[in-house]
Amino acid sequence: MENIVPNLNNKTHPSFESGSVWLVGAGPGDPGLLTIRAHYALQYAETVIYDALVSKSILELVRPGASLEYAGKRGGKKSSKQPDITRRLIEAAKSGKRVLRLKGGDPFMFGRGGEEALALAAAKIPFQLVPGVTASVGGLASTGIPLTHRTTGSAVTFLTGHSAGGTLPDDLNWEAISSGGPTLIFYMALAHLETITQKLLSNGVSEETPAALIENATLDNQQVVETSLKELVHTAKQANIKAPAILVIGDIIQLRSALDPNASVEDRFRAAQKLTSHWHQTAC
Amino acid sequence: MENIVPNLNNKTHPSFESGSVWLVGAGPGDPGLLTIRAHYALQYAETVIYDALVSKSILELVRPGASLEYAGKRGGKKSSKQPDITRRLIEAAKSGKRVLRLKGGDPFMFGRGGEEALALAAAKIPFQLVPGVTASVGGLASTGIPLTHRTTGSAVTFLTGHSAGGTLPDDLNWEAISSGGPTLIFYMALAHLETITQKLLSNGVSEETPAALIENATLDNQQVVETSLKELVHTAKQANIKAPAILVIGDIIQLRSALDPNASVEDRFRAAQKLTSHWHQTAC
Repeated sequence: MENIVPNLNNKTHPSFESGSVWLVGAGPGDPGLLTIRAHYALQYAETVIYDALVSKSILELVRPGASLEYAGKRGGKKSSKQPDITRRLIEAAKSGKRVLRLKGGDPFMFGRGGEEALALAAAKIPFQLVPGVTASVGGLASTGIPLTHRTTGSAVTFLTGHSAGGTLPDDLNWEAISSGGPTLIFYMALAHLETITQKLLSNGVSEETPAALIENATLDNQQVVETSLKELVHTAKQANIKAPAILVIGDIIQLRSALDPNASVEDRFRAAQKLTSHWHQTAC
Repeated sequence: MENIVPNLNNKTHPSFESGSVWLVGAGPGDPGLLTIRAHYALQYAETVIYDALVSKSILELVRPGASLEYAGKRGGKKSSKQPDITRRLIEAAKSGKRVLRLKGGDPFMFGRGGEEALALAAAKIPFQLVPGVTASVGGLASTGIPLTHRTTGSAVTFLTGHSAGGTLPDDLNWEAISSGGPTLIFYMALAHLETITQKLLSNGVSEETPAALIENATLDNQQVVETSLKELVHTAKQANIKAPAILVIGDIIQLRSALDPNASVEDRFRAAQKLTSHWHQTAC
């Protein structure tokens, strides 16, 4: 029981071929939330091109001798970033390396993984797509907020608060978003927190709707604040919440009092008692 | 390099205490998409209570000697299922076992994990929440459909096509859903495929909108059909698609031709050439 060996590498994983690129999700930050396949890829990769959101403790799992290349934001070169990255992926693969493109969370959920895969397809580079635990799924679990609950409704919407150009996306239908589902989860919401709040309020979302911000989800320095939509901007400033942060809006946040993994069993018990039958309903 | 050992168990994972319950996501089916923490939990659990959606190859990873209990749907006892399961979790934990509640995908995304955790809190049972790769995130990646792409818009909505009572949820605002985001992903959509299609069409979603169904996502017997919203019901019948299946609706499905992991490099290249600059845009 000392060594926990997922003996899956030979029978389960695709072969990591030389000259190919694996687009891999590193999960929300906690190395325990890497998939076994992502870990396998880290052991075989010769070149690892990673994003700003990949945690240090995950990079420590890269095999010794592999080349580690940072592909996060570079000062003053914002506009050429993405083409630079895809060019580098193609170049490394063409030189015969096993190339691992490592992205925080899931590469295909606001991670531009699809875009990079398309560039690889157009350059005739073989690739594999390895999904990951997306940041909000991991972050909400480590905070004690479910994504869905049968009494809150039957939908959850994931949005980005930050377009590729750095502005709030202008293609969002705020009226529909405000009434389409009971739970909204914004990635990269901090820069435009005030606008997001105003858009939701002016489209009929109640001021009292619970809101939560999760900074550094799943990591040791995770910080969570719970507030209301009305108080969101103020609370975020007071708590000095910094990026990366996930914004959650909806009644489901109320469950956190009873589900917070960092609370004591006694505190969770008392909170569970307080929650109404609305949340207790368990009969199917 | 033979044995791939994530040496994370001692420093990274919480201790799996006797008398506690771990609510764990098993991912979409492929054992390579288990998280390292889920795998660790499988090695330590004494009682494993698992759902119908957990694949056989994952159950084979449970440590020898552990008790395996099936908690899927039982004929004729539908109405008492969920209370039976929570009662069993509490009973097993109170008997001092390390109890693993193993759910397909992510337990907190339409998985009723929040509900079970709330029942554990109310029973003063210690628990841990371990998120997983949710079925659609895994299934879309293995199919070659990204969840988001910067040119399709900035949102993706996850819905369930199946309420706890077995009907289509009656709390969905179809008008808002139909215009709120460019990509819709329905879990458990098959039973109500016709109604879902009609609701979307009657709320202005175009008949020509691409639609895809993914059966047994990420498993060896995965089956995918691509069609249009207009042809969805007919195509699903013709292809004999069976549950469990994920339904995806949106233009993003068009990317699959260039990103399908099961296509050849040549076919992906030709498809990438055909896709318009709409999808090619990579400058940031």
